[in-house]
Amino acid sequence: MADAHPTTRLEAFCDGVFAIALTLLIIDIRIPASEQVGTTRELWLALRHLGPSVFAFVLSFAVILITWVNHHRFFRLVNKSSGSFVYANGFLLLTVVFMPFPTALVGEYLLTDHAAPAVVIYNSVTAVQAVGWILVSGAVQRNRLAKDETSIVLVRDAHRNGYVALVVYSLLAFIALWFPLAIAIVTAMLWAYWLAFSLRTNA
Amino acid sequence: MADAHPTTRLEAFCDGVFAIALTLLIIDIRIPASEQVGTTRELWLALRHLGPSVFAFVLSFAVILITWVNHHRFFRLVNKSSGSFVYANGFLLLTVVFMPFPTALVGEYLLTDHAAPAVVIYNSVTAVQAVGWILVSGAVQRNRLAKDETSIVLVRDAHRNGYVALVVYSLLAFIALWFPLAIAIVTAMLWAYWLAFSLRTNA
Amino acid sequence: MADAHPTTRLEAFCDGVFAIALTLLIIDIRIPASEQVGTTRELWLALRHLGPSVFAFVLSFAVILITWVNHHRFFRLVNKSSGSFVYANGFLLLTVVFMPFPTALVGEYLLTDHAAPAVVIYNSVTAVQAVGWILVSGAVQRNRLAKDETSIVLVRDAHRNGYVALVVYSLLAFIALWFPLAIAIVTAMLWAYWLAFSLRTNA
Amino acid sequence: MADAHPTTRLEAFCDGVFAIALTLLIIDIRIPASEQVGTTRELWLALRHLGPSVFAFVLSFAVILITWVNHHRFFRLVNKSSGSFVYANGFLLLTVVFMPFPTALVGEYLLTDHAAPAVVIYNSVTAVQAVGWILVSGAVQRNRLAKDETSIVLVRDAHRNGYVALVVYSLLAFIALWFPLAIAIVTAMLWAYWLAFSLRTNA
Repeated sequence: MADAHPTTRLEAFCDGVFAIALTLLIIDIRIPASEQVGTTRELWLALRHLGPSVFAFVLSFAVILITWVNHHRFFRLVNKSSGSFVYANGFLLLTVVFMPFPTALVGEYLLTDHAAPAVVIYNSVTAVQAVGWILVSGAVQRNRLAKDETSIVLVRDAHRNGYVALVVYSLLAFIALWFPLAIAIVTAMLWAYWLAFSLRTNA
Repeated sequence: MADAHPTTRLEAFCDGVFAIALTLLIIDIRIPASEQVGTTRELWLALRHLGPSVFAFVLSFAVILITWVNHHRFFRLVNKSSGSFVYANGFLLLTVVFMPFPTALVGEYLLTDHAAPAVVIYNSVTAVQAVGWILVSGAVQRNRLAKDETSIVLVRDAHRNGYVALVVYSLLAFIALWFPLAIAIVTAMLWAYWLAFSLRTNA
Repeated sequence: MADAHPTTRLEAFCDGVFAIALTLLIIDIRIPASEQVGTTRELWLALRHLGPSVFAFVLSFAVILITWVNHHRFFRLVNKSSGSFVYANGFLLLTVVFMPFPTALVGEYLLTDHAAPAVVIYNSVTAVQAVGWILVSGAVQRNRLAKDETSIVLVRDAHRNGYVALVVYSLLAFIALWFPLAIAIVTAMLWAYWLAFSLRTNA
Repeated sequence: MADAHPTTRLEAFCDGVFAIALTLLIIDIRIPASEQVGTTRELWLALRHLGPSVFAFVLSFAVILITWVNHHRFFRLVNKSSGSFVYANGFLLLTVVFMPFPTALVGEYLLTDHAAPAVVIYNSVTAVQAVGWILVSGAVQRNRLAKDETSIVLVRDAHRNGYVALVVYSLLAFIALWFPLAIAIVTAMLWAYWLAFSLRTNA
């Protein structure tokens, strides 16, 4: 198996990390303690306070899912592996596993008057994730791991897009120091665009 | 592998999410702290207080397991994939991962006199899960992903059942505002029916 | 894939649950908070207080691992699947996922003078797990899922052993009401025997 | 499948444990509670306090990832399985799952004046992990599970390296009783060396 599909085990490993990262998100949503709830109205109120947590949950879930789909598609282009490819993927997974932290931060602080740190950190982590994609696609190019000619072209595109994303998200992180809300809207629109683009593509 | 079985990796990914969602349920059950327990009788009492948590655990486990079996069987009908199929599955998984929350809510509040919010939310989430099934089976129909003629018919049935479930659970959620206990019993009977039906079928 | 190996996906699903159950055990071991530790001696003391948790962790890990190995070997005998086989496995997994709870209970309370509830519950859960094995092996017999003649004999043995285990652990649970420590030693010896037996076998 | 690739299921199981161990690390990083944060400056301060946690997260992630890559490569040398091989792997996984505990300990206490217990325990656990590698490679030798002549030589090397690591880390643990900081630097350098070595190798 190892020889026929050298990337299969790495792929399964990455999928495991993505699946767990997605599912772990739920542990931040806790039901209201029954001792603090006396009436039906109080229970409704307590549930309404969970709104931001549920919002952060859905957001993190969507972001990790979109990243998984990209990862899934990228691996289609590759049929060999190398030491630096494995570790570049490890670095990318590190940023995926970390993602729920800045997302929860944004969910908690976006609508307060101290939203700046949350949005700055969110876009910084996304910029670091872009570095992950640069390393992964760079390893494919350097070690010639791509499947065929078409794949080589697509990997080159992914590598260039990684640099574009790094510059864009670094800039957004910087500007968010002054205009957090505006940058949050821009970031959300970028994700929506990605999702729409990703939905149209065959997987 | 990707070309021969385009749905294999998606399937494995979904299975991972189901398996983790099932197993994570246990972290809500904590042993009584030894500082608060002085005698054997006190330990028995402390353990009895865990009753509702254990009940919610078994309930959530059963519901996610039945959903997994359905998902498992549905994937037998499909042998191609598409962007919207992948994202429709992602949406379905979102509802699966979320399920332990309303189940724990029902386990905690069903026998109090403010059970209505718990049962309303439980049936609402189930209605949203029905939307997930509508999207998944709709994507199979739209993008012609079914394996053969028999599968096409079964997917059409699943699509129609999704709409039926959406209407039924929305109605149940609405009525539960006034009669939470009665609706809880109806919901439990629907699951028992599903389980019995599912047990008879070959998998 | 589904047709060639109808049990592959169920097997992978079960493995996922076992792997997560094993790994989740670590979240009960927390490092001492640095605010409460002023000197090196205090840190050593705080770490010594973690002894019972670490002991329960190793114990749960060993028990789930041995159960996984048994499950792994049992699946070698089976090459077909059925509705009741899937749900019987689901029931068995429920007991596996639950196992860390009674194990932690034993780890916490065994050396106090109110150990009885812990040992009673531990052996009761093991008895329920025996029911899981009875259901799983029973489904294989009823639906004729065994691979060949040798497998049929081994499944019959497993079915009978399930009943023996059910009777033995129920008795142990009952006797533990009066003699918890003695029963704990008997239970540990049974596991040690299982491990020794399991180590000798080829997997 | 079992006969053609007797180690496939064990490999997938181990991968699952590694993937979960990696991903679970994130649950130790919690966002600051919004009730305790009144201004943007306070949020930045609260986030800076998370520094050691994030550092321990990255460290644990790197260590488990490197161990996974070693495990991944080791399994390439093996194409048969045995009872003692399975349990030796189980023991190795136990140490992998436990690793985040001493790593978090080091992250929390390294820069205090009571760092000794943290560094001693860290190197002790690494020494126990070396025992895991000795058991795994020993089982391969004893039960003749290696794939071919080259693999036999590489497994013999791994076995000898296990003993070297056991001696080295035991010594480091002992010396750390008096010079924790110096030993922490030596340990970090050993990991960096491993990573550099591992990156150069084809996987």
